[in-house]
Amino acid sequence: MSINKTLVFGHKNPDTDTIMSSIVMANLENQLGNSAKAVRLGNINKETEYVLNYLNIEAPELVSALEDGQNVILVDHNEATQSADNIANANVQKVVDHHALNFSVSTPIYYRAEPVGCTATVLYKMYKEHDVEITKNIATMMLSAIISDTLLFKSPTCTAEDKAIAEKLAKIAEVDCGIYGTDLLKAGTDLSDYTPEQIINIDSKLFEKDGKKFKIAQINTADLDSVFKNKVYFEAAINDEIKKDNLDLYMFAATDIINSNSKVITLGNDSKVVEKAYGVTLDDNTALLENVVSRKKQMLPKILENLD
Amino acid sequence: MSINKTLVFGHKNPDTDTIMSSIVMANLENQLGNSAKAVRLGNINKETEYVLNYLNIEAPELVSALEDGQNVILVDHNEATQSADNIANANVQKVVDHHALNFSVSTPIYYRAEPVGCTATVLYKMYKEHDVEITKNIATMMLSAIISDTLLFKSPTCTAEDKAIAEKLAKIAEVDCGIYGTDLLKAGTDLSDYTPEQIINIDSKLFEKDGKKFKIAQINTADLDSVFKNKVYFEAAINDEIKKDNLDLYMFAATDIINSNSKVITLGNDSKVVEKAYGVTLDDNTALLENVVSRKKQMLPKILENLD
Repeated sequence: MSINKTLVFGHKNPDTDTIMSSIVMANLENQLGNSAKAVRLGNINKETEYVLNYLNIEAPELVSALEDGQNVILVDHNEATQSADNIANANVQKVVDHHALNFSVSTPIYYRAEPVGCTATVLYKMYKEHDVEITKNIATMMLSAIISDTLLFKSPTCTAEDKAIAEKLAKIAEVDCGIYGTDLLKAGTDLSDYTPEQIINIDSKLFEKDGKKFKIAQINTADLDSVFKNKVYFEAAINDEIKKDNLDLYMFAATDIINSNSKVITLGNDSKVVEKAYGVTLDDNTALLENVVSRKKQMLPKILENLD
Repeated sequence: MSINKTLVFGHKNPDTDTIMSSIVMANLENQLGNSAKAVRLGNINKETEYVLNYLNIEAPELVSALEDGQNVILVDHNEATQSADNIANANVQKVVDHHALNFSVSTPIYYRAEPVGCTATVLYKMYKEHDVEITKNIATMMLSAIISDTLLFKSPTCTAEDKAIAEKLAKIAEVDCGIYGTDLLKAGTDLSDYTPEQIINIDSKLFEKDGKKFKIAQINTADLDSVFKNKVYFEAAINDEIKKDNLDLYMFAATDIINSNSKVITLGNDSKVVEKAYGVTLDDNTALLENVVSRKKQMLPKILENLD
């Protein structure tokens, strides 16, 4: 792969926003005359697969390592720990994101982040700014990303802007948000093909703070009990990860998309931080976190605040 | 001052872009219904004074310290070393910038940076995006910032976009870019009222890399000889700064805006980095750097690369 062709990708353990925003951003770049290609850093999850099948399109190519000097555009992430392994030697041209920011680069680049629910919401505005057409397929991708990241507008990360843009996109995509969105989210809760090791890695993110390393993994479910009947297998898989990656904390959250709660398993030397952060008592390494559904807004900041 | 009213400011040792972009951004926020006020972190330079007099407007209020929890918007900078002293305890809501990026925040914010010559160029696009009117005064401020930062389009930091937007702004401002711009830059070269200590601090920026601290100061001149006749006084002032701030390197650049060169004085334990970075030999702590005018593009990256 030429290092001059810009690769566009989102975070490891890609979710629907990461995959869709990579494709949508690469298309914008190509429309503006910059040669770009969407790629991915990990396996496609069931929810994303639903969108790809719906649109009858291929998943972006899987990339495991970048050449030194490779031109890249990051979407839906900015932290090196969540990016390609040798991101430090790549040439980051642009970042389009909606997360907390922990980034450093020695020359000016294009960096655009907004505190909205989804990268695709920012991309919608960039299409508008550059007067680039949003086709039916592009609209469906953007809409799927917004529905996924905002849990069909129910997450506290969802802003009025996300919802308004999603409604415009639904018209272009010719779908009913509620029907399409419910089918999409339901597809993401299907864990039947996965081993416990795979389930905890469907959507896990690594964070660092003051030398401490921790992971927060999250899955969506419509049935917490069916997830937790495999608790002992998850715990074994989590303990393996903790040992392998030298983690101080691992929090695995199963988010009930019907009732908007999350039940967590926490392990590691710093597992008690969850008690402090949420005022709960861990029962056999688990706790129910009422009204907590967003890793970005309700999990990560609380953990960062209370970790010492 | 209420911590709820958002303060908008640029870097310490403010230049024309910093002051104008603070006012222009505060106006945009107010137009969009967010209560904001432009302030400044240091003295107004002669060039900026020229614009304020031309428009018959007051300089933003000088602010020395922020209250904890103060809502702020940063323009024209992002690094804590160049910002208000207790920026770590402020609530940064937005950043609009065009510099290298070294920034960290634990919750998502609005961050918009583009690799263009001037913050005002980015602000122009934000006005357009939000469909906010660019009045004659606002246009003059934006135009002055672009002319200042790009040395009337001669700096390598100047992009086609800066120039195209400056031309549109000149029409709204009802000025001739060449005439107004030359007068503006000339006003900035007037150092007659300053002591050597003040001259080296007109536009100096502090940087850090791997525990090393260095400053790069820059002034514009149309007459290098008249600046360098005071060399020994500058050296004394620079050595005082080095001692006071524990610096490893101080580079003072006098940029000849007619011939597009910079003559530098470098002092400190790491002063030899300049020889390595530019392939020059220091002669009594000075060197002429041919075709070097931009701190951001031609000084800072070279120093960062060669400092070990």
